[in-house]
Amino acid sequence: MFKKMEKAKQIENSWDSLVAGVRAGNVRAMARLITRVEDREPGWKDAMKAIWPHTGNARIFGITGSPGTGKSSLTCEIAAELVSRGLSVGIIAVDPSSPFTGGALLGDRLRMKKIFNLKDIFIRSMATRGMLGGLSQAARDVVRIMDAFGKDIILIETVGVGQDEIEVVKAADLVMMVCIPGQGDGIQALKAGVMEIADLYIINKADLPGTDEVMADIQGMLELSSEIGYPVAPVLKTSALKNQGIKDLVETLLTHQAGKNKQEFKRGIQVKEEILTLMEREVFRSIRSRWEHSGELAEAVQQMIDKKKDPYSTVTEMLDHILKE
Amino acid sequence: MFKKMEKAKQIENSWDSLVAGVRAGNVRAMARLITRVEDREPGWKDAMKAIWPHTGNARIFGITGSPGTGKSSLTCEIAAELVSRGLSVGIIAVDPSSPFTGGALLGDRLRMKKIFNLKDIFIRSMATRGMLGGLSQAARDVVRIMDAFGKDIILIETVGVGQDEIEVVKAADLVMMVCIPGQGDGIQALKAGVMEIADLYIINKADLPGTDEVMADIQGMLELSSEIGYPVAPVLKTSALKNQGIKDLVETLLTHQAGKNKQEFKRGIQVKEEILTLMEREVFRSIRSRWEHSGELAEAVQQMIDKKKDPYSTVTEMLDHILKE
Repeated sequence: MFKKMEKAKQIENSWDSLVAGVRAGNVRAMARLITRVEDREPGWKDAMKAIWPHTGNARIFGITGSPGTGKSSLTCEIAAELVSRGLSVGIIAVDPSSPFTGGALLGDRLRMKKIFNLKDIFIRSMATRGMLGGLSQAARDVVRIMDAFGKDIILIETVGVGQDEIEVVKAADLVMMVCIPGQGDGIQALKAGVMEIADLYIINKADLPGTDEVMADIQGMLELSSEIGYPVAPVLKTSALKNQGIKDLVETLLTHQAGKNKQEFKRGIQVKEEILTLMEREVFRSIRSRWEHSGELAEAVQQMIDKKKDPYSTVTEMLDHILKE
Repeated sequence: MFKKMEKAKQIENSWDSLVAGVRAGNVRAMARLITRVEDREPGWKDAMKAIWPHTGNARIFGITGSPGTGKSSLTCEIAAELVSRGLSVGIIAVDPSSPFTGGALLGDRLRMKKIFNLKDIFIRSMATRGMLGGLSQAARDVVRIMDAFGKDIILIETVGVGQDEIEVVKAADLVMMVCIPGQGDGIQALKAGVMEIADLYIINKADLPGTDEVMADIQGMLELSSEIGYPVAPVLKTSALKNQGIKDLVETLLTHQAGKNKQEFKRGIQVKEEILTLMEREVFRSIRSRWEHSGELAEAVQQMIDKKKDPYSTVTEMLDHILKE
């Protein structure tokens, strides 16, 4: 009896049944598949192969900005508005301080509550560290699973600090950059690299003083960027807390052409990076486990500690052992 | 005549002569060798192999902290004090906003000037992006070259934000964490990960109000960490601008036992990571160039854009072609 149940559970959790479950709109199957793919359990690549033909239907929007700009509240409002239009929404939150991931004040959580209970919204949070396949690849995999599940829109919320975090929104077709009044430093940070990826600027908390100044800052920056060949991105005002400007924003999102990321995808830039990154990780995992099992790695480590052998020689020798001609 | 000069220049710039130059204390040779190793020019591994036997003599101190804590001024004062004690100092600055890397106000630069002209100080700044071997490996390589050159002390200054930047100070034997009065957020950030690596805390700008509060915050945090098994780190007060507390700090640095990083090194944790990272990068570079030359990568990219083939299948097939059994 007990064995039978165990067997049943195994079948239920097989890769095939999880993929079938995702296709059939089973939320638990989606959550499990995501976890197992993130953990790179053996067989994950075949599962993603099976998911692949069912992708390409969802639209993917990225939301990024400094901590404190109200990204999570905005994500909430956008999601609620999309659902009210009959669309099914997936949210990927890559932010340790996001209310979605539990790092929030009680007030925030209460505010979020209204969307946690909507059955058309699936929320997945993602740790910024320790992703076996890398953070941006993990985001791509989750996007594909949600897409195959049948989500119409996938929102990726990520804190706009750190190179890895910025890479994550490259999985989106369209990237929104959230700013707030009085955020002098934020605009500085934009200049430093986010400008390259943002398709749309949002001034959130636009009921606060200083909105005109930050608007002028952004537009000044955008004029500069248009001179160097980027198309000028729209700038919208919202107040997530007062639910102002959300309808206009969602309208803009749904009618906006595919952004820079999508164009990069078509030109193959992103595709190339993804293939190379996947390859790198897989080769590395394969080498690492082989070395650890054979004891070669432990030996090399000891030789280096004893100063008998440098790491550069070790790596040169190992390369010959591993790669085919 | 012209050819002869060119030949002479080539010889002068050969890997062997650069390594010999470094060993002989030639500053230009050191600067060139660092650049070429950073650029991963063919032959770099052999050069690092030749450097390796001459390393292990320098002491390496890491300095990290949020932007605005005065890390650079402090680094300056520490360097000046070390030189006044007859020690030769190398500085590695990994911070886009550091005065060492040119991103500073004029006042800062003027202040720095006193050490730029000291012949016993060599300063190398490092970009946070685009390092072919990875940022922390680049820092390790530069440390070794400075060590072989004969530097007694190497200071690594890095902004304590972002995982890569934190990894960098793992090349140090001892890590100082710089805080300032009124830095509530800073202490929050500490808790999030820097605590694991800091061996020594410095409250800089300790002439400002709020010093006692930040001292209490740090000590509260340290008590917590001592409960979970970390040794309690010393907390020192300085004012880099007024040159207060610097002598005590340098005294502490020079007499302090090797810190957590050094212990990790001895336990092989860091060594293992370095060998694996080097390996990963080298395998990847080798695979990438092979693929790009053969046209296989371009083909795989096009198939993915056309949705004829998924990246997961591509990578599985490629792995078989590349790795020996």
